[in-house]
Amino acid sequence: MKTKLVLALLATVLAGSATAQVKPEDAIKWRQSGYGFMAWNMARIKMNVEGGNYNKEEVIKAANAIQAIANSGMGALYLPGTDKGKGWEETRAKSNMWTEKEKLGKAAMAFGKEANELAKVAANGNADAVEEQLGKLGGTCKGCHDDFKAKR
Amino acid sequence: MKTKLVLALLATVLAGSATAQVKPEDAIKWRQSGYGFMAWNMARIKMNVEGGNYNKEEVIKAANAIQAIANSGMGALYLPGTDKGKGWEETRAKSNMWTEKEKLGKAAMAFGKEANELAKVAANGNADAVEEQLGKLGGTCKGCHDDFKAKR
Repeated sequence: MKTKLVLALLATVLAGSATAQVKPEDAIKWRQSGYGFMAWNMARIKMNVEGGNYNKEEVIKAANAIQAIANSGMGALYLPGTDKGKGWEETRAKSNMWTEKEKLGKAAMAFGKEANELAKVAANGNADAVEEQLGKLGGTCKGCHDDFKAKR
Repeated sequence: MKTKLVLALLATVLAGSATAQVKPEDAIKWRQSGYGFMAWNMARIKMNVEGGNYNKEEVIKAANAIQAIANSGMGALYLPGTDKGKGWEETRAKSNMWTEKEKLGKAAMAFGKEANELAKVAANGNADAVEEQLGKLGGTCKGCHDDFKAKR
């Protein structure tokens, strides 16, 4: 009995966070939500830089949201086994996300770096610089999708 | 022809942002995404304060994500007519969101205030204070849901 308890406690400690209690369908829904919300913010920054009607405050809010989501630790939502399953919809995460860890890590790092940079550039308010940085961020999205997200 | 062009330009300017170009189904999906992502972050802060295994860094990331989403200007996603329609799922926004503007504005202000406060409290790292502030934030969520979100 005592051994079981110790093992259970150890498992909790090793988990290092509360993710062990998360249901797979919630994890999938929550990560789809993160990307969905970033999609809005990418879209409205794009509309601002292309529309000839640049709203600095809106771009800052959008870039800050992307940055905070990018830095939120969404990796914790890729629970083992969640290469299959339905959140808002069937996941399109490919199973190599769980095997090509080094490649995935590099992609995630690049994404975080460009998201942080976008927030900085947005604060400065130069539409051309924001457009350029949005392109760099979008490149890291696309790279990761090409490698790790199934096509429809 | 010229009058039409001027009117079109005027409409763009009056919109004051790029929301005029947004499809209703996207607006609904994106707002559902914002709430969905906040739900994860609320849930993991709760697990941290209740689990006896407080991870300050995780709580800060979660609180920062909630704050950035709360301050992102999601009101722009409540396009006229989007009290009906499907994003990830059928919207549960009640039509009084578009009529009881003062009441809604107060609810949104309270939510933003408590979200900003949570990020501050999380940075300080006191689990008890975070738990108390999470309760205050949750109260503003519930208040708004009770008034403006249809039950399942």
